[in-house]
Amino acid sequence: MSNNVNLGPNATLIGAKGSRARLTTPALVLDLEAFEHNLAAMAAFARATGIGLRPHVKTHKSVEIARRQIAAGARGVSAATLGEAETMVAGDIPGVLITSPVVPAAKIERLIALNQRARGLMVVVDHPDNLAALEAAARQAGTRLRVVIDVDVGTKRTGVDSIQSALALAKIIMASDALTLSGVQGYAGHLQHVIDYAERRRLSHEALRPLAVLRDQLRHWGVMDPIVSGAGTGTFDIDTEGGALNELQVGSYVFMDVQYDEVEPARGGWRFRPSLFVAASVISANHPDHVTIDAGLKCFATDGPLPRVMRGAPPGTRYAFMGDEHGRLVFANAAEGLPLGAMVECFVPHCDPSVNLHDLYHCVRGDQLVEIWPIDARGRH
Amino acid sequence: MSNNVNLGPNATLIGAKGSRARLTTPALVLDLEAFEHNLAAMAAFARATGIGLRPHVKTHKSVEIARRQIAAGARGVSAATLGEAETMVAGDIPGVLITSPVVPAAKIERLIALNQRARGLMVVVDHPDNLAALEAAARQAGTRLRVVIDVDVGTKRTGVDSIQSALALAKIIMASDALTLSGVQGYAGHLQHVIDYAERRRLSHEALRPLAVLRDQLRHWGVMDPIVSGAGTGTFDIDTEGGALNELQVGSYVFMDVQYDEVEPARGGWRFRPSLFVAASVISANHPDHVTIDAGLKCFATDGPLPRVMRGAPPGTRYAFMGDEHGRLVFANAAEGLPLGAMVECFVPHCDPSVNLHDLYHCVRGDQLVEIWPIDARGRH
Repeated sequence: MSNNVNLGPNATLIGAKGSRARLTTPALVLDLEAFEHNLAAMAAFARATGIGLRPHVKTHKSVEIARRQIAAGARGVSAATLGEAETMVAGDIPGVLITSPVVPAAKIERLIALNQRARGLMVVVDHPDNLAALEAAARQAGTRLRVVIDVDVGTKRTGVDSIQSALALAKIIMASDALTLSGVQGYAGHLQHVIDYAERRRLSHEALRPLAVLRDQLRHWGVMDPIVSGAGTGTFDIDTEGGALNELQVGSYVFMDVQYDEVEPARGGWRFRPSLFVAASVISANHPDHVTIDAGLKCFATDGPLPRVMRGAPPGTRYAFMGDEHGRLVFANAAEGLPLGAMVECFVPHCDPSVNLHDLYHCVRGDQLVEIWPIDARGRH
Repeated sequence: MSNNVNLGPNATLIGAKGSRARLTTPALVLDLEAFEHNLAAMAAFARATGIGLRPHVKTHKSVEIARRQIAAGARGVSAATLGEAETMVAGDIPGVLITSPVVPAAKIERLIALNQRARGLMVVVDHPDNLAALEAAARQAGTRLRVVIDVDVGTKRTGVDSIQSALALAKIIMASDALTLSGVQGYAGHLQHVIDYAERRRLSHEALRPLAVLRDQLRHWGVMDPIVSGAGTGTFDIDTEGGALNELQVGSYVFMDVQYDEVEPARGGWRFRPSLFVAASVISANHPDHVTIDAGLKCFATDGPLPRVMRGAPPGTRYAFMGDEHGRLVFANAAEGLPLGAMVECFVPHCDPSVNLHDLYHCVRGDQLVEIWPIDARGRH
């Protein structure tokens, strides 16, 4: 975390009694109690099942949160982009796995430079041309690059499309003294939000089967302890059952969101609690049945469900988008509305892209603002 | 524009031949030729119709673009948030109209401070309680604040709901020596994207009728040259016909977007050209009918239509979202795909929230990157 970060208009409220209710809005609010519960719950799950954690920073983009994940036992973090990886390495976070192929030449140059100052950096690869480019760049720099084979387990987004293609890449990597084969990755992004738990479980087990075959073959070829990385918050407890994965790339569990809350968890319910909200204020109140707040589609991701009103409003109050900077709160009972200036908090609809719209986490404990953390890698596409 | 802005990984390409095709992606690309055409076309329209321009910076959030709008004849700019207004005033942009009510006490304090260093700042008001708070704050600071009455012309978002309510606010303002009544605002946000031109025209004329009544009453009461501000890119040429408006808050015309391109313009077609694109690279190419690019829902707004592939891909190529960091390009003909590393440019779906996802404009002229401008007020909710 850089020392000269602008902590915004709420910095003077840190530590003040009742400051949560006095935040300048819109403000992204992180409830530390729920957040710490979530960190501990996933760490406990990993310990109990003997699985490694490499949580995904695409969700939070924060060095401070990555540090806490490492402190809670994670062996590293996953990053979606080179920019996120650079931010994490600058924050001295070890074991960064870049989970998307790094392809353009200018980026490969940055990747190799990053590899020289990082501890345990890894990057996925899914194509022989990209592999050749990585190999040439690592060789030229006189460095050794750790690579992980990305296997398409049904998302059809990135990844090789067959076990044969994966093994062909493995052979090339193993034959190179500029590359180290660190393992395989398979992320079933398309299954994380399958509503029905039993169906999600069945599909996930089926999808990850090729990863076990690959792992066994790599071991047979003498690859020591290959990582088999995958899963998301929707399948964290499912994907460890199959025996294929040995580490989890879970991201959303630290915050949860309306989208995951609408997915059926295992029996016993979600182990994770809502921790991430947008605080907003009523800025127009000229109608009996609704008011307008200062948080619209530049504050909340619009790719999933609607934000859910959680604090400060009468029961049954619903949110509706009203443009870039505005949202509408519709009251169940027109007699129980909210006055001008009232503040509410809304649970974020889809956490990753919602976080990416903000610069700061306003960390609260109970009713008090206690810290502000920068979203260091926001916009590092 | 601050002097210590980080111009990102493409800064070294400025002025290089063919640099547009070598941008590190994803990158927001502004085609200066189309952009300058759009600035000139709106300025010419304003001159021809005798209407004032106060373009909305919520679209571009850039001091550099605001400067060019002023240089092309705009009398000021409109801002959706206090943060945008602060950014514009810091960039020495005069005549900022804040188009949403500023309500919480901490923000009113900032507003009054801003008013003391700004030239011609104005803020809208739509409620007597807010007006009383503004009056008290201006009085206490010993300053005079210009206010504009926000009139709801059908969007039901902000604004007073009747001519009577507007006139009641006007009387309070005129009686105060800490406030100056600068005019009225009516923005028909709900009509900007009515597809059919004739229908949009009919509805817009009807919606703005109360503004003319108000203007006449204010003049009758002795208000000198009240501004009557409103309109968007969808109704810029319609709202000037009615005679109610005397200035335009248009924003999107500088860029255009897929959403406006799907709206029927006046006969003769849109006067404005697409100028804003996201450049993206193919990072996975393991399927005959589609590839994956490095621009997903953290690069494009998802509240409107899909991005439109405009450059670098075979005709008929369609974009589909594939998560936070990825998009899919689906080819019309599988035999005419794109290789790994190929670069494409996509026209932005809805310009305002798409811009807000980026930090920099990569300004191109033809095939060359010629300047990089910061998106100064990005995230200034």
